[in-house]
Amino acid sequence: MQHFAIIVAGGSGNRMGSAVPKQFLQLAGKPILVHTIEKFLAYSADVQIILVLPQADFPRWTTLKSDYSFIHSFTHSIIETEGGATRFQSVRNGLACVEGNGLVAIHDAVRPLVSVEIIGRSFAAAAQHGSGIVAVSAKDSIRQVLGRDKTIALDRSTLRLVQTPQTFRVDLIKKAFEQPESPLFTDDASVAEAAGFPIHLVEGAYENIKITTSGDLVVAEALLGR
Amino acid sequence: MQHFAIIVAGGSGNRMGSAVPKQFLQLAGKPILVHTIEKFLAYSADVQIILVLPQADFPRWTTLKSDYSFIHSFTHSIIETEGGATRFQSVRNGLACVEGNGLVAIHDAVRPLVSVEIIGRSFAAAAQHGSGIVAVSAKDSIRQVLGRDKTIALDRSTLRLVQTPQTFRVDLIKKAFEQPESPLFTDDASVAEAAGFPIHLVEGAYENIKITTSGDLVVAEALLGR
Repeated sequence: MQHFAIIVAGGSGNRMGSAVPKQFLQLAGKPILVHTIEKFLAYSADVQIILVLPQADFPRWTTLKSDYSFIHSFTHSIIETEGGATRFQSVRNGLACVEGNGLVAIHDAVRPLVSVEIIGRSFAAAAQHGSGIVAVSAKDSIRQVLGRDKTIALDRSTLRLVQTPQTFRVDLIKKAFEQPESPLFTDDASVAEAAGFPIHLVEGAYENIKITTSGDLVVAEALLGR
Repeated sequence: MQHFAIIVAGGSGNRMGSAVPKQFLQLAGKPILVHTIEKFLAYSADVQIILVLPQADFPRWTTLKSDYSFIHSFTHSIIETEGGATRFQSVRNGLACVEGNGLVAIHDAVRPLVSVEIIGRSFAAAAQHGSGIVAVSAKDSIRQVLGRDKTIALDRSTLRLVQTPQTFRVDLIKKAFEQPESPLFTDDASVAEAAGFPIHLVEGAYENIKITTSGDLVVAEALLGR
């Protein structure tokens, strides 16, 4: 079964206090995005990578490709496509590049600490159940805000923090992304759920962090150096 | 108004793969517990510290006190009391050591990266609103498990991850802890809420992590070294 991985690199460097978009920042000697792509290729060199990048970042990506040999050793070429104004639109653009059936993992470019095992679990669950959504248990108590100074405790044991990859059967997730965009679509699982498709969770890792602040970058460096 | 801080050091080192209870593990050259106590004393040397420790850890604490000068420079003595079988019971034992009125911050011994500013916000909110519960916005999408292979997306914008300190008016939280224990009491705010008291959230920090695994310890070292 053909395996695809859409790597969504939508963000700017604003929250980092950096002019460089965060997916291009250096982490342990190479750009975050390179770590991320390498993890999927380590899982299987046959995964077709689809990289979704803001238009403004294409020159940077071209430079990066010429610098890193992993691109050349990859047997297939990486498909590149332009991001949209929102994450939903970016993923939809990525899905438009998926030709044929199979499984597609959708992954944040700024989650470079994902493991090969997690990627494998996610694909395996999607093959069996239609989706494989990586998630971890909540370590903190969680409260829901109902209004000004009105919150309630939720039962933590029932809550899961969702990460990526979020992997799906191609036909199913393409169908889901035909829906109109909603502000409640904070991830791809919520898009699939709204289309009536089953959401199957698989175990992630607390280390599989999303790098969005300079503090996260320090944490990622430390975890990589263990 | 008298300020108290109950530092709850309940855990063992089991999840760390360490024989040493996690609050006594070294972090940047001194035990985690010492970092935590120092933060409250840095906020104000007039805070009465109440340390809740498992009975088995008292000899370790006695050694630690003789090693660290912050104990001697502290104008009041630290009150020590024995922990219970659960966090609820440990906090209740700590509250039994609070004499008089005022405000009491309840804080995990293994959250050494709390800032003086966060402690201050928490006490200020408790003085004004009766409680000051430190929390941060959810960065990840969150799903609620309804049954086997049945989960639903929650609206992330309404969710807050709860940290410590959780600070209260003394009379209010003592009253709340007269309730029988419930498995839904995953933190002190949920105890206060069940007693009908208002829960007022204040802004925490993602860096204010709870150290429960060896990965967390690596992360804390990195954040301290920034």
